[in-house]
Amino acid sequence: MKKAVCLFSGGMDSAVCLYCARNEGYDAVALSFDYGQRHEKEVEAAHRLTHDLGVPHHVIRFKLPWKGSALLERDGKLPEYRDPEKMPKTIPATYVPARNSIFLSFAFSCAEAEEAEAIFFGANVLDYSGYPDCRPEYLEAFTEAMRRGTKAGAQGRAIEIKAPLICLSKKEIVLLGRKLGVPFEKTWSCYAGGERPCGVCDSCVLRAKGFREAGLEDPLLS
Amino acid sequence: MKKAVCLFSGGMDSAVCLYCARNEGYDAVALSFDYGQRHEKEVEAAHRLTHDLGVPHHVIRFKLPWKGSALLERDGKLPEYRDPEKMPKTIPATYVPARNSIFLSFAFSCAEAEEAEAIFFGANVLDYSGYPDCRPEYLEAFTEAMRRGTKAGAQGRAIEIKAPLICLSKKEIVLLGRKLGVPFEKTWSCYAGGERPCGVCDSCVLRAKGFREAGLEDPLLS
Repeated sequence: MKKAVCLFSGGMDSAVCLYCARNEGYDAVALSFDYGQRHEKEVEAAHRLTHDLGVPHHVIRFKLPWKGSALLERDGKLPEYRDPEKMPKTIPATYVPARNSIFLSFAFSCAEAEEAEAIFFGANVLDYSGYPDCRPEYLEAFTEAMRRGTKAGAQGRAIEIKAPLICLSKKEIVLLGRKLGVPFEKTWSCYAGGERPCGVCDSCVLRAKGFREAGLEDPLLS
Repeated sequence: MKKAVCLFSGGMDSAVCLYCARNEGYDAVALSFDYGQRHEKEVEAAHRLTHDLGVPHHVIRFKLPWKGSALLERDGKLPEYRDPEKMPKTIPATYVPARNSIFLSFAFSCAEAEEAEAIFFGANVLDYSGYPDCRPEYLEAFTEAMRRGTKAGAQGRAIEIKAPLICLSKKEIVLLGRKLGVPFEKTWSCYAGGERPCGVCDSCVLRAKGFREAGLEDPLLS
């Protein structure tokens, strides 16, 4: 059976992405990171969801000893948005330097060790194009670097990055997730780590937009 | 003053590389990894050497929860070589899946956070071309991926990878290190973690070849 490593934060997008991998017939291995982000709720959500699916789940833990992102400074204030239309188109304060490259490098390491042929990555550019490491031209160049720099690539078994959500709107992601049976109530998207989603961080605002435009209720909020 | 992040394992090559960065006028920040390799002597050597130089030193710690390398299996046997001419030209058992991509991704993260303009990396292909992630064509593709995928790159301040040793022989690396004043007695290259270098792992064999061909004695062995 063909195998895929799925980058899985425990959030809505990566959950839909994991279900896409399974829907495409891949035997999935999930990979999460605890990297000193503001809270552990994401990793806990990832653990519950993969456990229920019976999907093997690796968690890589590391700390970035430098600053440079609102996501890493637990005491600082996260940017707040009330209106998704007013979100800036520039690189947001929650950008973590080279984070997706770190995640993808670990995913390629896992894929080589597990002999997986693909990496599923829930990157999405359409609704929020501020993150440079979520763009197709970046993923294409990263894939090429890894084709040249891995044993798998050198042996002609280059590993592919699949980003099935890259050009979907948040609405389309919600609808796709519903079709695939994603248990949205078990996912966690909020950047803050409260009892309930804060409703005003980038991630909450975009998730809410997706559910609203899809005409569905977010079970996390009901 | 221009700044560079130097990947620094504590071994001979990366020490020469760190001295190259300083010699080229860079303010250096050293970056080491404790990733479950067989011993901590490398990281200790890196710490001593950067402390003596007054160079800031970050250590990133993580564990790879998958197998796939003789370097990660503490109980397994390392390949042994008595004759550097007989070392295989294929990818060695000590290859760690996607390791240099993980290291470089962290280095780019550090470089963005520290506003450094270059990353110094002691990769070397000439004596031992088995590692796919030490080749110039890989470094070139990786740089391009990071130009596209980082905030620095998106803002026109792309970070460069400098690999001053890439086409030097081990002899030339030893001679360059001597010229730059590298304290070889403080470096540690051996893959095993004994009191003294084992003398038969890839790394020991190549280091010995370098000193022999340079007509110098390795102070670690005297």
